[in-house]
Amino acid sequence: MILKKQLAKKVLSVTALSCLFFGSVDYPSYISAEDHNEEVKNVIFMVGDGMGPAYTTGYRYFKDDPDTKDMEPTAFDPYLVGMQSVYSHDPYHDGGEEDEKENIPDSAATATSMSSGVKTYNGAIAKDLEKDDTKTVLEAAKEKGMSTGLVATSQINHATPAAYGTHDESRQNYNDIADDYFDDQIDGVHKVDVLLGGGTDYFIREDRDLTKEFQKDGYDYVTTTEEMEDSEADQLLGLFAPVGLDKAIDRPEEQPSLADMTETALEKLKNNEEGFFLMVEGSQIDWAGHDNDVVAAMSEMEDFEGAFEEVMAFAEEDEETLVVTTADHSTGGFSLGEGGPYKWDPDVIHAASHTPDYMAGQIVEEGADVEKTLTESIDFELTEEEITSVQEAVNNGNDEEKMVEVDNAIEAIFNKRSGTGWTTDGHTGVDVPVYAYGPASDRFSGFIDNTDNAKIIFELLNSAEEEEEGAPLADTATSYPLGLLAGAVAAGAAGVILFFRRKQLKA
Amino acid sequence: MILKKQLAKKVLSVTALSCLFFGSVDYPSYISAEDHNEEVKNVIFMVGDGMGPAYTTGYRYFKDDPDTKDMEPTAFDPYLVGMQSVYSHDPYHDGGEEDEKENIPDSAATATSMSSGVKTYNGAIAKDLEKDDTKTVLEAAKEKGMSTGLVATSQINHATPAAYGTHDESRQNYNDIADDYFDDQIDGVHKVDVLLGGGTDYFIREDRDLTKEFQKDGYDYVTTTEEMEDSEADQLLGLFAPVGLDKAIDRPEEQPSLADMTETALEKLKNNEEGFFLMVEGSQIDWAGHDNDVVAAMSEMEDFEGAFEEVMAFAEEDEETLVVTTADHSTGGFSLGEGGPYKWDPDVIHAASHTPDYMAGQIVEEGADVEKTLTESIDFELTEEEITSVQEAVNNGNDEEKMVEVDNAIEAIFNKRSGTGWTTDGHTGVDVPVYAYGPASDRFSGFIDNTDNAKIIFELLNSAEEEEEGAPLADTATSYPLGLLAGAVAAGAAGVILFFRRKQLKA
Repeated sequence: MILKKQLAKKVLSVTALSCLFFGSVDYPSYISAEDHNEEVKNVIFMVGDGMGPAYTTGYRYFKDDPDTKDMEPTAFDPYLVGMQSVYSHDPYHDGGEEDEKENIPDSAATATSMSSGVKTYNGAIAKDLEKDDTKTVLEAAKEKGMSTGLVATSQINHATPAAYGTHDESRQNYNDIADDYFDDQIDGVHKVDVLLGGGTDYFIREDRDLTKEFQKDGYDYVTTTEEMEDSEADQLLGLFAPVGLDKAIDRPEEQPSLADMTETALEKLKNNEEGFFLMVEGSQIDWAGHDNDVVAAMSEMEDFEGAFEEVMAFAEEDEETLVVTTADHSTGGFSLGEGGPYKWDPDVIHAASHTPDYMAGQIVEEGADVEKTLTESIDFELTEEEITSVQEAVNNGNDEEKMVEVDNAIEAIFNKRSGTGWTTDGHTGVDVPVYAYGPASDRFSGFIDNTDNAKIIFELLNSAEEEEEGAPLADTATSYPLGLLAGAVAAGAAGVILFFRRKQLKA
Repeated sequence: MILKKQLAKKVLSVTALSCLFFGSVDYPSYISAEDHNEEVKNVIFMVGDGMGPAYTTGYRYFKDDPDTKDMEPTAFDPYLVGMQSVYSHDPYHDGGEEDEKENIPDSAATATSMSSGVKTYNGAIAKDLEKDDTKTVLEAAKEKGMSTGLVATSQINHATPAAYGTHDESRQNYNDIADDYFDDQIDGVHKVDVLLGGGTDYFIREDRDLTKEFQKDGYDYVTTTEEMEDSEADQLLGLFAPVGLDKAIDRPEEQPSLADMTETALEKLKNNEEGFFLMVEGSQIDWAGHDNDVVAAMSEMEDFEGAFEEVMAFAEEDEETLVVTTADHSTGGFSLGEGGPYKWDPDVIHAASHTPDYMAGQIVEEGADVEKTLTESIDFELTEEEITSVQEAVNNGNDEEKMVEVDNAIEAIFNKRSGTGWTTDGHTGVDVPVYAYGPASDRFSGFIDNTDNAKIIFELLNSAEEEEEGAPLADTATSYPLGLLAGAVAAGAAGVILFFRRKQLKA
């Protein structure tokens, strides 16, 4: 059925026909270039949070088959189309002094850039520099009657998913953001049909239980992998942890993998004739980077790659799905090489069966023996010095610092042995890779800015709409339901906002 | 004349015609895709040594106009087509123990991969893992009667240029490599028509003066920018420093910029009807990285960008020139972000009018006053603590270490203030960006391995040859002048070599 449809499309393309007729040897690539500007039914946008170039490269070293001379490509590699810049422009930082402005982005600013096509300040959840709401590609999709989904391994009200489905001046307002998912509707329906991640702490509170409210409106609510797989409703809220899920390498069976959640989301969303928009985030690659934890970083890359493979299998069969996969920024100044030697050794990382965080938890919170815990979770012979370094972290420091210090001591063993370097516990400004597949994927080729992701997706959604309804191109820029804003802003201000939004979306 | 020829080519393309006839909206991009597989007359391969993604990004921050909200693209950005892997496979390291092998590359291994299409050990100058000579793209070009050139800011017998024009088991054999440029000929002519860089220490020695030998064979020999510009011979040896040139920001007028050298090389090479192969290296981006010196890094990026602009101006007018620009690896674990803050401040770097190396030389070698030297070369107000840190480096340590320690102390000021992090004084394994322009530039798109550069260029040179002479494709793999090897190896060994080379070039 799908094959037939695709064939018909190809046969009907006059330019393709012309090339067939003249027997061009370039026929296949030309056809695909032609297809790429047409027929985007579904959009899947995948974000490896913090997944800068050292992560995508390091993961290739990590997955390399040591029995072959060549290094095998990762699942991502064949789809690389370019890189994007990620800088933010934050005049609000430190009281708004211009010379103090931040230019290395946080995940809220970058997610807003990717969801809405604007540069904004660090911390902004779909808000522009004037702190006005920005229209997001998810909202545009929902306005068109498409299904929508957000999947993450962080709490689902964390910066990246939040900047697609909600609006807030600050990423820190977790409860307000959770509320927004329920309260902030489009044309009388909830914005997001499938929400999968962590976050019961924010959805079930003393003042409000959003899980009950969602269920009243027909959503299934699930908290385990098994419940998720049994869900039969079209709309689904799945919260599998109080805050973020456990790291993949530590994750219990009750918590799904990112691939599991992605598969479920695709099952729910794919039935809409109007198509769907799905954002999938490998959230904790970034958290591993903040922690300077190379074991967790590779574990989370693997979780993200699994979801990517799930998405690619769907898109390859579907043939009307655009897949864009990228990072929002890089984290930690991660580098494959530390202190001189020309070797980065992934075997050291493969030897771990748990993250240092997990081991530190066992030791500090459960009171487990240091040497026993380490030898149970690490498959290489530890030196006396290494064991002592962890034991000393246990003995020294007060209780509050102990967890961090033991964690750091264990991480240092893996960093040192593998040759992993770090420069910060924050983010870096380096460009990040962009991978794309499917119709219109060539639009993401070469060097782009993170705002281009939204600009291109808006244009693709709009041109499909235009085809159907004959709506003019500029209409997307003003189709935001202003009624939602009218209560909050004066009518005079609305004109100014409209002007700025037009400018932004046309830029 | 060029325009006419280009037009004729377009009109004669049947596939282009077919698309014109059917009125495809994609006509222009299709034409360019078509052109890309044809008519490569000249190849310019540019290597920013050490220029990993943090360098190309950092340089964008550095060049940003602070008066605009958006960050302006660099000269490179519009030509980004993908990234390449750079890993080496070095079983020889530390006595050849398999588990000790290096997988982060040096510039000799990567240059051999890019010049010859094979993975090899660190230190190899156009030698494979069996230590047999590898055929290079420069040699293939010369065999075809094309002109050839090598331009670098290091000594011209340094790893990268050496791996295009010579063969040696070790990059450290600088004298042998210099000799090779003269002695190792193809069909009775010198391999490289234009050699521009540093290196009088190696070319003029007690045992041999290669500058005289080259002059006897008709080369001009020049040692200053002015002499270079006055040169009228077709072949040119220019050596502007004993070893490497000074860093661009410290460079005296007598030493040319990389753009100057590139312009001269293009002037000499462009007259050959058979076309030319030119390799241009921004050699000292890497040296700045080894030194963890962000001032020198940006200075060398600027020098390299100037050469890139020179090349692009030529290629855009010429229309038959393929330009590929990339890095061999990244150096230093350079990152835009250190110790937490979300800010990387290029203004700090713009404040320097010399490198820390230069300032340290003034202080240690010339005995100049610390505070006076620093304030003369740095356009921001130094703190007492900063001045003291440099003064202490002068006071402490013996004479041998003093230069390094003073240099490090000055570098630390720039690193700290700008938010620059480093993880190593060696290389890292991260993927590096690839930029391409001109006919066949689409061949370098997406994710490639560094060996693909040579494989594609061999194929392009070969297919042009095939068109002219009707030679079969496999011919390139065996067209290496075996006569040159016959004196050195037994006839039996030659068969084995041939077998391996066939395998490599077909892989």
